[in-house]
Amino acid sequence: MSNSIGEKFKVTSFGASHGKALGAIVDGCPANLELSQEDIQKELDKRKPGTSSVTTPRKESDEVQILSGIFEGKTDGTPITGVIFNKNQHSKDYSMFKNTPRPSHGDFGWMSKYGNYDYNGGGRGSGRVTVGHVIGGAIAKKLLKTQDIEIISHVTQIGNIKAEPQEFSIIRENVEKNPVRCADLKAASEMEKLIIDKKSEGDSVGGIVETIAVGIPAGLGEPVFERLDGDLARILMNIGAVKGVEIGLGFDVANHTGSEINDEYHIENDKITTKTNNSGGIIGGMSNGMPIISRIAVKPTPSISKCQNSINLEKRENEKIEIKGRHDPCICPRVTIVAESSTAIILADHMIRSGFIHPANLEL
Amino acid sequence: MSNSIGEKFKVTSFGASHGKALGAIVDGCPANLELSQEDIQKELDKRKPGTSSVTTPRKESDEVQILSGIFEGKTDGTPITGVIFNKNQHSKDYSMFKNTPRPSHGDFGWMSKYGNYDYNGGGRGSGRVTVGHVIGGAIAKKLLKTQDIEIISHVTQIGNIKAEPQEFSIIRENVEKNPVRCADLKAASEMEKLIIDKKSEGDSVGGIVETIAVGIPAGLGEPVFERLDGDLARILMNIGAVKGVEIGLGFDVANHTGSEINDEYHIENDKITTKTNNSGGIIGGMSNGMPIISRIAVKPTPSISKCQNSINLEKRENEKIEIKGRHDPCICPRVTIVAESSTAIILADHMIRSGFIHPANLEL
Amino acid sequence: MSNSIGEKFKVTSFGASHGKALGAIVDGCPANLELSQEDIQKELDKRKPGTSSVTTPRKESDEVQILSGIFEGKTDGTPITGVIFNKNQHSKDYSMFKNTPRPSHGDFGWMSKYGNYDYNGGGRGSGRVTVGHVIGGAIAKKLLKTQDIEIISHVTQIGNIKAEPQEFSIIRENVEKNPVRCADLKAASEMEKLIIDKKSEGDSVGGIVETIAVGIPAGLGEPVFERLDGDLARILMNIGAVKGVEIGLGFDVANHTGSEINDEYHIENDKITTKTNNSGGIIGGMSNGMPIISRIAVKPTPSISKCQNSINLEKRENEKIEIKGRHDPCICPRVTIVAESSTAIILADHMIRSGFIHPANLEL
Amino acid sequence: MSNSIGEKFKVTSFGASHGKALGAIVDGCPANLELSQEDIQKELDKRKPGTSSVTTPRKESDEVQILSGIFEGKTDGTPITGVIFNKNQHSKDYSMFKNTPRPSHGDFGWMSKYGNYDYNGGGRGSGRVTVGHVIGGAIAKKLLKTQDIEIISHVTQIGNIKAEPQEFSIIRENVEKNPVRCADLKAASEMEKLIIDKKSEGDSVGGIVETIAVGIPAGLGEPVFERLDGDLARILMNIGAVKGVEIGLGFDVANHTGSEINDEYHIENDKITTKTNNSGGIIGGMSNGMPIISRIAVKPTPSISKCQNSINLEKRENEKIEIKGRHDPCICPRVTIVAESSTAIILADHMIRSGFIHPANLEL
Repeated sequence: MSNSIGEKFKVTSFGASHGKALGAIVDGCPANLELSQEDIQKELDKRKPGTSSVTTPRKESDEVQILSGIFEGKTDGTPITGVIFNKNQHSKDYSMFKNTPRPSHGDFGWMSKYGNYDYNGGGRGSGRVTVGHVIGGAIAKKLLKTQDIEIISHVTQIGNIKAEPQEFSIIRENVEKNPVRCADLKAASEMEKLIIDKKSEGDSVGGIVETIAVGIPAGLGEPVFERLDGDLARILMNIGAVKGVEIGLGFDVANHTGSEINDEYHIENDKITTKTNNSGGIIGGMSNGMPIISRIAVKPTPSISKCQNSINLEKRENEKIEIKGRHDPCICPRVTIVAESSTAIILADHMIRSGFIHPANLEL
Repeated sequence: MSNSIGEKFKVTSFGASHGKALGAIVDGCPANLELSQEDIQKELDKRKPGTSSVTTPRKESDEVQILSGIFEGKTDGTPITGVIFNKNQHSKDYSMFKNTPRPSHGDFGWMSKYGNYDYNGGGRGSGRVTVGHVIGGAIAKKLLKTQDIEIISHVTQIGNIKAEPQEFSIIRENVEKNPVRCADLKAASEMEKLIIDKKSEGDSVGGIVETIAVGIPAGLGEPVFERLDGDLARILMNIGAVKGVEIGLGFDVANHTGSEINDEYHIENDKITTKTNNSGGIIGGMSNGMPIISRIAVKPTPSISKCQNSINLEKRENEKIEIKGRHDPCICPRVTIVAESSTAIILADHMIRSGFIHPANLEL
Repeated sequence: MSNSIGEKFKVTSFGASHGKALGAIVDGCPANLELSQEDIQKELDKRKPGTSSVTTPRKESDEVQILSGIFEGKTDGTPITGVIFNKNQHSKDYSMFKNTPRPSHGDFGWMSKYGNYDYNGGGRGSGRVTVGHVIGGAIAKKLLKTQDIEIISHVTQIGNIKAEPQEFSIIRENVEKNPVRCADLKAASEMEKLIIDKKSEGDSVGGIVETIAVGIPAGLGEPVFERLDGDLARILMNIGAVKGVEIGLGFDVANHTGSEINDEYHIENDKITTKTNNSGGIIGGMSNGMPIISRIAVKPTPSISKCQNSINLEKRENEKIEIKGRHDPCICPRVTIVAESSTAIILADHMIRSGFIHPANLEL
Repeated sequence: MSNSIGEKFKVTSFGASHGKALGAIVDGCPANLELSQEDIQKELDKRKPGTSSVTTPRKESDEVQILSGIFEGKTDGTPITGVIFNKNQHSKDYSMFKNTPRPSHGDFGWMSKYGNYDYNGGGRGSGRVTVGHVIGGAIAKKLLKTQDIEIISHVTQIGNIKAEPQEFSIIRENVEKNPVRCADLKAASEMEKLIIDKKSEGDSVGGIVETIAVGIPAGLGEPVFERLDGDLARILMNIGAVKGVEIGLGFDVANHTGSEINDEYHIENDKITTKTNNSGGIIGGMSNGMPIISRIAVKPTPSISKCQNSINLEKRENEKIEIKGRHDPCICPRVTIVAESSTAIILADHMIRSGFIHPANLEL
């Protein structure tokens, strides 16, 4: 198994839902970046469940400790290790999942591939492992901030409810104002209601999360096989529950002609922009200086309490399964932080790779 | 720049549209695979332009030579080099593109990042570089065939015309019967008409290409950061003109509840399947034994002959551009071969990585 | 900075001498390997200082905790994290080293490259970071043991005292019997005396460490750029204080003719061996089934208490330095464990890469 | 098999001794480096056999063609492909080697690992594949020259004849004056005589090659697992016939105390040097600004015409072998170019990785 991502800014993630600890190592962050435990904790708190009507009431404390990589308040170029110790590892009996994979959940793959599967709370297949993404992303964001790059993810659709597009400044402000993390406050309250409805039915619902990154210079990404859009698509598709990724106009390009959607260039005061941004900030695999815009399709949480058909892998026979427990009826709100973090990791990596940030030392 | 993809089955691509030659090296193909020049030529011929009403009439011979890696008709474990020499390198004057980037084409990125840009025919930013993908993909397909894995890509949408879903065997048969490579023959002829219309208007049109891989064992892909869906999303998004990638139900998951789309397991005669395949053959980042289904959104060719606004990078001022030349009015039909090849490369790589194919020698 | 090694069996190391914690993550160890904290602790105890007349009397407890990767006593294919918390981080004042690099110690490189250098106890440039190698190596050894591969390192020279060659079984037995970890017990006691002498003079002394690996199948390693000898040379040269690496006859090949040292093949009972093993088990970059033998040159510890010339990097002027503290007068005995561990990591990695060990699951 | 080396400046080598062609792709060379076919040809000519009394009289033309990566006389950031077509592929019958591995030659590994082995002239196990190293190295040298870095390799020992140490400027001048490429002209003529003697006996002889790189800034290399000395050791040990690598004082450190060989710092006119260079320019895995000095032990060519014992792998029985053909009686003179090239590849790669050379564009 490989649990690392990034070439120069490399994040290695470890730990399982109900194991001793989870965390991540960031290797390759340049020295002299001011960084504190609070910078990371702040981001983890956004991901934390049990904080609103639309997430699981399950409590996870998620207190991070930095074990290495900081000297006198700044990074020193060595690997930064962030770890979260699990408080109550054995709160519950998960043995009914030992041989019976949950439909549309990773269980079956883990069981057949590795043989020895920690099925407690989903083990390393749990959404809880994204604390590693968030630790990596928090450091990446702090690094990108030194270059005036900012990233925000927000929910644009839940079920059949779609948000109206908003300005970047409004999005930044509004996502913090509602538990769904949707920038259109009217849609947000309808979404909240829909999620609570589905929860009461023992069901779950999907949605769409958009991520916008501003302040990106032109020239990130490398043509052909290490393109910026490819690397973003990869890390976003790697988030559990994501089944689609699009950049700019995305799937809607299929419905258009070139003359309708080509982004024409414009220069004014020596600043080059495009009149439209249907490309979502990336053309030919490289950033063009416009905001980078991606959207991901997030499936409904597969863990639902309704009775489902499954199989018993030991007995080799069909078996029903009912998944009790306190699952998120919709993970989109919490996925926003993971999408933001994932995007930040790739952008930080490419900023170093493309020579915009010095690989060893921020002061050089 | 990095022009390689794959960890064990690694494809390195080289060459530019109007340079001396283009090609690819495949490093990591196990020994003892029967392989001939014809195996590769056959695939290249599908990508070749100038063969139908819907592609550019521009002729490219694309005759491949294998320079290394084959001994007595079989691979010998050493790097396989396939090269295509360009016949007429300097057929045309491209100097009007030297300082004036084409809207929504990679030119601008190349110019600003590398400074010394071979603008002739788009240089290495040209779609012509996908001959490297096809060389790699042809070898990957031959390797996968030894494991009874088959991959087919077909066009499912052009502009507002959508094809009806078809059975795998029908798709295989029908794509070869029409120039659009669409399996719904009725839709295909409407698509053909639409493309010819747009061409006559000096415009272009987008579409959607679906890829289906059958015969995949359960357990390909590695959870968290080297998932199979992430790696597929990456290589597919890396294809020029692709702006979106989805697996299984894709973006439509946003509109559904868990109980509607969860794939329930079923066992019969010790064979495990899922009743539906909304996951598109991948759950938790690993294959589950069902067909792997992806779709990509392909934008309309950005090179259109209509007059467009651009800039002159040397003079630093706004400038109009008219792109003469014989461009594909819709690249979806030719992208099918590139999508097939890209999918084959990732699947071959993961088949070796996951231990289904011996890394050194097919006879072991 | 990059702190990872290995392609399939990947070790990522973290932490600094006087930081909160040090450790390593092993990613890529197949599932179903029995592994306990004791397996790792046992190896760490061999590296531990303060245990004999020839090491520093400095105490380091080095108690490892496994934070992830084990389920019900066996690996589960997920990353294995081993961590050692430092007990007394701020035992001493190291401020005299803040701007004054120690001759032949890494200080100067760290200071000039990263700017923000944790100079306490050498920070991440300290020999103490090799606990990460040992954690990785302990897991690698356990994995290799399932394939009947065994690795032993021993001291063959200290200063001008050279050990007589010994049989593998004698080496295994004798290294544990003396603090120098030399298999020739007579030489061992002379070496011990020499080390104590040098220590009393405030000086240090160098030596040679040999590593022997038995039970290796033929065919590990890949020709040209990922050869087994190259990968071994790399990890061994990467050990601090190592200035030379040789395989088999090593530098002595310069003094010989082909007819004198070629290893002739012999077959008996269908078992192929070579009559001599001047190649040290590796020819053409691949193992040939004979024992793999390497030797490394270990320089005398650069930290000596004698007064030395150095510079003050802040004042930009020459300055004398006297390094007080309890340093190893000869690190060869402790390096044996690090050489064993490093060799084990590379062999485990290549056993998986070459298809001798299944990448995901030991039971397959 | 993997045939690539380097992270940012990546060389991928292909081809076999008697195949259609051999060559290399350099991916990651920044744009705007002036580069011509002659720059590469010049280096290949130094490696070419048949040019003196001490090499094989076998003729190999080795005319390189650049197929991609150069635009208007300069690199353009895309992969640079250099290829050499073999003129007479089937000059000789090699079938006696089909099942009978030559002692101390890679044959046995190739046969047992890959099954389908091109035994003609040693196939890809032949020293001839180092044309790929030289193509990569020629480009690396040209790149390093823009930073005033220069690299020279020379022979310091053949059999029992050792050269006296010489100044860098003398070495540069003298290596071109004699076929042995030894800078001590008196020793050179004795070496030449020894080689010719061994040749007439149907035997071969080993030696030592030293490489010196000057002009290196302090701070190349990354501590722990991607150290500069480790990466140099790897690429040098990867050269066929090399059995040992040392840096600076090398194996002689074993005979010394810290006070004898520590390199004390000195500052004068704000320039920092060390009084001695026993570390060979690398401490703690990073360059310190002093010349980087390595030495490799080169074994006698294993192909000798004396009768030797071997085995027949098909018949599974012992068999004698006599290797006819025109082999180098000593490959040290030709290895100098390969060592120079290999060193240049690693230094170019680390110059980019450490931020001394811009990764995309020399003009930035």
